[in-house]
Amino acid sequence: MSSVPTIDLTTLNPKVVRHMSPKQLQQLADTMRAFLIDSVTKTGGHLASNLGTVELSIALTHVFDLDVDTLIYDVGHQTYPHKILTGRADLFSTLRQTNGLSGFPKYEESPYDHFETGHSSTSLSAACGVATSKYLQNDTSNTIAVIGDGALTGGLALEGLNNIVQMPRPVIVVVNDNDMSISENVGAISHLFASKERSQAFFTALGYTYIPPVDGHDLSRLIDTLQRVKDTQESVVIHVKTIKGYGHSDAQLDKVKFHAVGYYTVEPKPVGKAWSPLIASLVEAKDDVYIITPAMIEGSGLRGIDRARVVDVGIAEGHAVTMAAAMRRRGSKVFLPIYATFLQRAYDSLVHDVARSNTPVVFGIDRAGTIPGDGDTHQGIFDVSICMAMPHLQLMMPANEAQASALLDYAFAASTPTAIRYPKGNSIAAGQPLTITSPTWLIEQTGTQAIVISYGPDVYAIQAMAHAENLSITLVNALFLNPIDEAVFASLIAAKLPIIVYEQVIRSGSLGQALQARSANVVCAMAYDAIPSHGDVKSLLDQAGLSMSHLAAEIRRHAT
Amino acid sequence: MSSVPTIDLTTLNPKVVRHMSPKQLQQLADTMRAFLIDSVTKTGGHLASNLGTVELSIALTHVFDLDVDTLIYDVGHQTYPHKILTGRADLFSTLRQTNGLSGFPKYEESPYDHFETGHSSTSLSAACGVATSKYLQNDTSNTIAVIGDGALTGGLALEGLNNIVQMPRPVIVVVNDNDMSISENVGAISHLFASKERSQAFFTALGYTYIPPVDGHDLSRLIDTLQRVKDTQESVVIHVKTIKGYGHSDAQLDKVKFHAVGYYTVEPKPVGKAWSPLIASLVEAKDDVYIITPAMIEGSGLRGIDRARVVDVGIAEGHAVTMAAAMRRRGSKVFLPIYATFLQRAYDSLVHDVARSNTPVVFGIDRAGTIPGDGDTHQGIFDVSICMAMPHLQLMMPANEAQASALLDYAFAASTPTAIRYPKGNSIAAGQPLTITSPTWLIEQTGTQAIVISYGPDVYAIQAMAHAENLSITLVNALFLNPIDEAVFASLIAAKLPIIVYEQVIRSGSLGQALQARSANVVCAMAYDAIPSHGDVKSLLDQAGLSMSHLAAEIRRHAT
Repeated sequence: MSSVPTIDLTTLNPKVVRHMSPKQLQQLADTMRAFLIDSVTKTGGHLASNLGTVELSIALTHVFDLDVDTLIYDVGHQTYPHKILTGRADLFSTLRQTNGLSGFPKYEESPYDHFETGHSSTSLSAACGVATSKYLQNDTSNTIAVIGDGALTGGLALEGLNNIVQMPRPVIVVVNDNDMSISENVGAISHLFASKERSQAFFTALGYTYIPPVDGHDLSRLIDTLQRVKDTQESVVIHVKTIKGYGHSDAQLDKVKFHAVGYYTVEPKPVGKAWSPLIASLVEAKDDVYIITPAMIEGSGLRGIDRARVVDVGIAEGHAVTMAAAMRRRGSKVFLPIYATFLQRAYDSLVHDVARSNTPVVFGIDRAGTIPGDGDTHQGIFDVSICMAMPHLQLMMPANEAQASALLDYAFAASTPTAIRYPKGNSIAAGQPLTITSPTWLIEQTGTQAIVISYGPDVYAIQAMAHAENLSITLVNALFLNPIDEAVFASLIAAKLPIIVYEQVIRSGSLGQALQARSANVVCAMAYDAIPSHGDVKSLLDQAGLSMSHLAAEIRRHAT
Repeated sequence: MSSVPTIDLTTLNPKVVRHMSPKQLQQLADTMRAFLIDSVTKTGGHLASNLGTVELSIALTHVFDLDVDTLIYDVGHQTYPHKILTGRADLFSTLRQTNGLSGFPKYEESPYDHFETGHSSTSLSAACGVATSKYLQNDTSNTIAVIGDGALTGGLALEGLNNIVQMPRPVIVVVNDNDMSISENVGAISHLFASKERSQAFFTALGYTYIPPVDGHDLSRLIDTLQRVKDTQESVVIHVKTIKGYGHSDAQLDKVKFHAVGYYTVEPKPVGKAWSPLIASLVEAKDDVYIITPAMIEGSGLRGIDRARVVDVGIAEGHAVTMAAAMRRRGSKVFLPIYATFLQRAYDSLVHDVARSNTPVVFGIDRAGTIPGDGDTHQGIFDVSICMAMPHLQLMMPANEAQASALLDYAFAASTPTAIRYPKGNSIAAGQPLTITSPTWLIEQTGTQAIVISYGPDVYAIQAMAHAENLSITLVNALFLNPIDEAVFASLIAAKLPIIVYEQVIRSGSLGQALQARSANVVCAMAYDAIPSHGDVKSLLDQAGLSMSHLAAEIRRHAT
């Protein structure tokens, strides 16, 4: 780590790396690691996972011919080394910023990004597709998937693992075993990887050739091993042991904390409590509630809660939802916090096991709305469309902390499934205590030009905008997206003012569309018609026509 | 099988079965098998799978105390023996009929139905929930999950399998290995179950105690084995070998055909080609198209197609979609037929791997709309809500065979993802050949009282109704649900007639809601506000207010 960098990273491409000497490759590893630490701590991004894959990425690029062979990285936030090796070092100063380098593989960024992997556990299925196409195209090149041990607990990855052995062309599966998801790993597969014998028994039973653990930071051993399996005619699992955060003392020490760093550096300064731990602490205060998390102990703010009340089921969202349903049917109160983007993985469990049978699980939909750096794969904009279609399910969003508390009280007393959305980032107001006993909309202020309906902290952003822009609006805080507050909605219709709905979700299945379908008074429903990219939230909203300026313009356009 | 039935099945309950002698239990098995063959061939329903689980269900009910222990059957169409043993024999004449006995476990039918399992692969997650609740409730009773080898290829089941070993109370997993899903099994897990040694290695590596194969039709061996694991303190896998269709020569011979019988006995007589094989044959004629099926070779009408052009990936819907995306990114044209209800399992793969990146996979959404006997777990009413929220994806539905052909031509030429819906059952018209080059709505007839917009074969049902009821309507066949035919829609708005949209899907995210949101002329959107139950389609539509009589009434109510 102390060696002077001697490789110019901006001149790299796979061909250059293929022809490097062992000494140059080691210099490259040292240079890249120093560059990553320097660069990512400035821009923010996933640091620890990428420090763990430096040598592995170099070895793969050196041994295989990436101009011919197909290399797919699972959960693409581990591809920073790959991006450097494929000619993108000069773009790292723009990482995860508006119009800058994506934090994940992108088709439009590079021909070496063969599959866009934002969510985890997709690489093995993708490799099956690539192998099948190669068979149809008489292409005998190598197909390699690099997947973490954490991602292997995901159902999609296990479906892929089951199928690779029946594919007409072989796949080389590189298991990057760092004994971590984002939090510590759990379950049988984690137990498995702790033993070479168990791992061998497992993969051999499934029909794979298994290569026992290789030190993922020993370049020459990695290269030897990969060269042995290159051009294999049978599907192979190579077990590589890496250390998340390797080579950076802080990141290595606290892998969870350094999983991603500097998330908020490009965002407005937080002024209140962070939403996830706020919700977690409100739930913790309810003694009889048990919490299920799909690999998000840290992200969902659960670290401090008594572990007898929390189970981390790993990256397994569908399982988490179905398990929660079964607990609730048996009388246990359950809270399941899940990122909006990962709720997409549990659609069937939500409808089949919860909503259809009216089972009163309480969901916390975390990171709801526009997401900055992670970009299009992680936007929290589909959960409203999903939840609005679910029979029985009540969907809510608080704008401040007091409302969050009241809505959670309501949710845990409800005899139906409920879901409470909250955004990434920090709350902006404590708010006045209140009690909620039925689906409620709050009228925050009244005005004469138009009615604006919104929900969540956006309500207060709209209030500030209206004040600054000197607009006289009736502002409605729709605490319940479904069912709506019928009495308040009827009174709004009766007011005969133009109604505008503002929300940061996909249009189809949104609150705005539902309200527009009910009344011609709803003249405008502002929502996403496309998935936003990565960058700061303000510019993403701007690009989508959903900024406060756009809302002001709509109010003026329709004002009476 | 030839013994005279001596057990009165209508007097059964778990307590009675617990106290039966070995001889009585064998008589019970014979009686139940004869009863099932007689009853199910009359009513229709899942025959082969239930003939396979007669002895297993009896043994489980005899050994465990079902008034205390928790028994969960995966993919609940194998629970007919369980229903008989828990006091529901007298209801079998109403099986799968309106207001009759459900073909799946139902909370409201019996306290012995602990989890409603319609879709496969949910039982292990449910068992995790039950085990966790028991831990919290200091309940030391047994938790047993019965899961087929086919269901074990589903990602949800594998997520559950990974988690059971970390649960605070043990689970007894009974693998019902009949070497079948609905079609033959595929992949590594199938390979696994073919060998006792591989199975042992696999489950032991995962941390389970493994009990090698037991003959699932040998009552005394089954009982002995279950008694050994009763009250276990560690999670156990019991491998039981059964024969689907056991004891019925026809069902045993053709397990695929006899998976379910008599589906159409309560439905109107088919008059045209069946939709699934029709679509399959249209796709087969396109030489360059490869087909991926998630365990539905038979159901999707693919049996006759050259196997070099088809891959069955097993019960693994998310995997199928992600794999299709990877093939398409590599230039292969892919068709993926999937039941509407199982598309729910692939929501995240659809948005993350297909729609977001505008990858032109072609989907066939089979069994779309109202489903008769299978009931609420299998209704094909959420796919429209799902697909309408997907950026880039074009959603279509043909009303006749010629339109299906033209839409498939359009889909395979498109540079976006496309999905073509078609219902269960048979087409009613060949239709006039046509060419489609852009999103098109057809005006089937013009009238003066109202405009009705619908899609799929319902269009012709509406036409017949309007003729019979002497209603003068403009009838629009919306071949494209998204994007819509803007020119035709504008002309409909300009006609200043009341517009009614009729569809058999959930309201939120429906075409009707989208159109209502766009124009106040759309006075009525007929859609489901709840999930229909099981029964004949006519009565299900009637109960939901979606019959042709209801539509006629709406037309009259709004007519100019």
